[in-house]
Amino acid sequence: MATPSPAQTPPVITTRILRRLLASGVHIRVERMLEKVHPADLGPLLADLTPDEIRTVIDLLFKHHRAAAMLKQLPPELLPQVFETVSDTRLVDLLCRVELDDMLELIEGIPEDRRDAVRTLLPDSVQIELRKAEIYPASSAGRAMTTTYLALDEKMTAQEAIDSIRARGDLDESVFNLYVIDEEKRLQGVVPIRRLVAAPPDRPCHDMMIREAISTPPEADQEEVARLVARYDLLAIPVIDVDRTLLGVITVDDVIDVITEEATEDMYHLAGLSEEDRVFTKPSLSVRKRLPWMLANLGTAFAAAWVVGLFQEEIEGLVALAVLLPVVAGMGGNGGIQTLTVITRAIALGEIEFSSGLRAVGKECLVGLILGAVTGLASAGITTLWHGNPVLGIVIFVAMVSTMAVAGLLGASVPLALKALGQDPALGAGVVVTFFTDAFGFFAFLGIASLLMDHLL
Amino acid sequence: MATPSPAQTPPVITTRILRRLLASGVHIRVERMLEKVHPADLGPLLADLTPDEIRTVIDLLFKHHRAAAMLKQLPPELLPQVFETVSDTRLVDLLCRVELDDMLELIEGIPEDRRDAVRTLLPDSVQIELRKAEIYPASSAGRAMTTTYLALDEKMTAQEAIDSIRARGDLDESVFNLYVIDEEKRLQGVVPIRRLVAAPPDRPCHDMMIREAISTPPEADQEEVARLVARYDLLAIPVIDVDRTLLGVITVDDVIDVITEEATEDMYHLAGLSEEDRVFTKPSLSVRKRLPWMLANLGTAFAAAWVVGLFQEEIEGLVALAVLLPVVAGMGGNGGIQTLTVITRAIALGEIEFSSGLRAVGKECLVGLILGAVTGLASAGITTLWHGNPVLGIVIFVAMVSTMAVAGLLGASVPLALKALGQDPALGAGVVVTFFTDAFGFFAFLGIASLLMDHLL
Repeated sequence: MATPSPAQTPPVITTRILRRLLASGVHIRVERMLEKVHPADLGPLLADLTPDEIRTVIDLLFKHHRAAAMLKQLPPELLPQVFETVSDTRLVDLLCRVELDDMLELIEGIPEDRRDAVRTLLPDSVQIELRKAEIYPASSAGRAMTTTYLALDEKMTAQEAIDSIRARGDLDESVFNLYVIDEEKRLQGVVPIRRLVAAPPDRPCHDMMIREAISTPPEADQEEVARLVARYDLLAIPVIDVDRTLLGVITVDDVIDVITEEATEDMYHLAGLSEEDRVFTKPSLSVRKRLPWMLANLGTAFAAAWVVGLFQEEIEGLVALAVLLPVVAGMGGNGGIQTLTVITRAIALGEIEFSSGLRAVGKECLVGLILGAVTGLASAGITTLWHGNPVLGIVIFVAMVSTMAVAGLLGASVPLALKALGQDPALGAGVVVTFFTDAFGFFAFLGIASLLMDHLL
Repeated sequence: MATPSPAQTPPVITTRILRRLLASGVHIRVERMLEKVHPADLGPLLADLTPDEIRTVIDLLFKHHRAAAMLKQLPPELLPQVFETVSDTRLVDLLCRVELDDMLELIEGIPEDRRDAVRTLLPDSVQIELRKAEIYPASSAGRAMTTTYLALDEKMTAQEAIDSIRARGDLDESVFNLYVIDEEKRLQGVVPIRRLVAAPPDRPCHDMMIREAISTPPEADQEEVARLVARYDLLAIPVIDVDRTLLGVITVDDVIDVITEEATEDMYHLAGLSEEDRVFTKPSLSVRKRLPWMLANLGTAFAAAWVVGLFQEEIEGLVALAVLLPVVAGMGGNGGIQTLTVITRAIALGEIEFSSGLRAVGKECLVGLILGAVTGLASAGITTLWHGNPVLGIVIFVAMVSTMAVAGLLGASVPLALKALGQDPALGAGVVVTFFTDAFGFFAFLGIASLLMDHLL
């Protein structure tokens, strides 16, 4: 295969180049460079700069009135350290220049001790808008929607609609659908802009609109909205109230961000990580975020060790038990994590319901049993060869089969149970499954050994 | 919070209802119901049916000429079992009715022993098209692009462009951008359809097109393309050859599928799972897919157990060592998995380069050290209280600090090294990190205990 030609993207400006220009002190060159930076590329650039360097860059962006366009695209975890370099007045200016959904996100990024002060400086009308949006729960459709969209009257013809769009001048980039509403702002249907263009000029909107448009209530979770958009290949989804009043629109680019974040969240929760704990988060914050999970695991690890402690006599009698113990527990742990991953992913993708969940538990149990039998046989063989003790081989075989079956059972049922209780299936499941699998594995292996002790020695 | 009103989606038809209607044998009722099923909802419905039931449903879809529209949206893992119920002639009919990117995906789903036979039955022109697309590597942009797009001449005015679109009649749903090409089919620029509509009727296309349009070569990996689309909030990305010839277009709905699949893949690879191993995959296939990973883990588990075996004498002398051993290894394992998750996710999201990778390794090492110190202190306290042996507390403290630091080091450097070698950073890293962390943990804990044996007893 020939070396592929690279994708054509905005010019690549590295942190190294930016730092060099900043250090040279020739601001006009930094300005020229910043002009070429796509808003989406600013985040990775800033992530590596010192606070002073960030301050200079942000100052230059404000000077060129590009701060709003650039900063609204920063990854949320970068906002606090960037905003530390921005004055309250400038923050207010920034917030007034972005749309409501971006405003909500930017406000979240203001350091908590300044957040209220900045808010009171906003114009009254904006404060009212904000409070209205904040009625909706966090991560809901109501918080993610943009409230600027293009509405049409159903009696308009295609050409009239096109003329009215032209009269408004250049459209916001996020407009692909036009929304047909009645005099009370209730959504009647959706006209994709491409359909408008392809239609004969005199066709009325109500003849070309999609009447059964897929929509979402403002209280819906963003994850659910993202699933709808992904499933039905939508470009935008209208947010409507119970009385069908059109409140706003969520566009596919925001949905992609939600999908990416949710995937990160699921992966992170399986490992007991917090979303704020990213690759370049300050070590002190990473430590603070990971410590509770570590301590929880430490607690369960000692609890599982207590199970081992019950069999001290057996271990004293046959040290090979201590040697093989981690094998059983480790394999059980692996099996549990595999099942947990399959099930939490299926839950996240909406592939599993409660009734089919029971079938999944049965399947995972069976798979665990078979995998346990195969790896158990292999373990029995290795053990017999290594320790010359076939009875010990039988012990490890039985322990492995039962532990792997339990790992399948717990790995499938714990996340489903958490889901049924309205909890995050990934978060917490890991520590519970690992603890019970470990404890069961220890108990099974040492317990069976204890029963067969006479034949083992 | 009030119960949110549900999202408005296509009518929900459950497998239970479908099964009941199928069992009743009144096909007209099944047909009426299938008419209401959105193509995106067919997959979950079929997943739960028996082969005979699937056959009936597919027959009815073919009867109503809806098979192509419905089946092209099935999840790939379902295709083999669905296609088992479809004759070769019908498969050919199906393939001829879908676009090239869907065709490539459907062919992948035909059971291998019939694939070539079906292909030879396709019209020659289609076979040539297929072979052309298959020059591009698997999972590349060239395989995912659609070759139907709307091209314009740069001299056309906005109104002329609109007229030419109208002349073509209703557009394919996937058209949001128009591509301006010269007489040699080289891409000159992109006109978003919304910009076309908003422009004055007499404005020429070359005045409103985006000249520096972000594009991708056909050899680029789909994951990379998805990252571009997500990062720059695109709706579609043109695929162009080295000479700028426009080859096709990849749309955002396909990109969402890629993002979702890639997230699944990363999560799965971390746990050593294969993508085909989904929640309702047959148990026999799940077992087959998981077994190699399980056996690899078994091998490393026994290798780690061999390390424990080196210290049999010490364990015989002080059984508490056997009791506490799994605590050290377990905590090291947790730390390794956390770091591994942070780093593989950062690699997947393109947040990390090789140079910043070294910084990440340093950070994770430091975080491991601190977490090890805190959990080590806690462990030392618990151990001293439990076993009344402060020297044993010191041993577990030192073992915990060093094991957690090594877990951070390996959890960060192994995936980065795999990435640098052009390998999948998630796949394989788990088993390597776990093995070395376990082995190091055992060695550190038992080794230090061995050195301090005189003070321990």
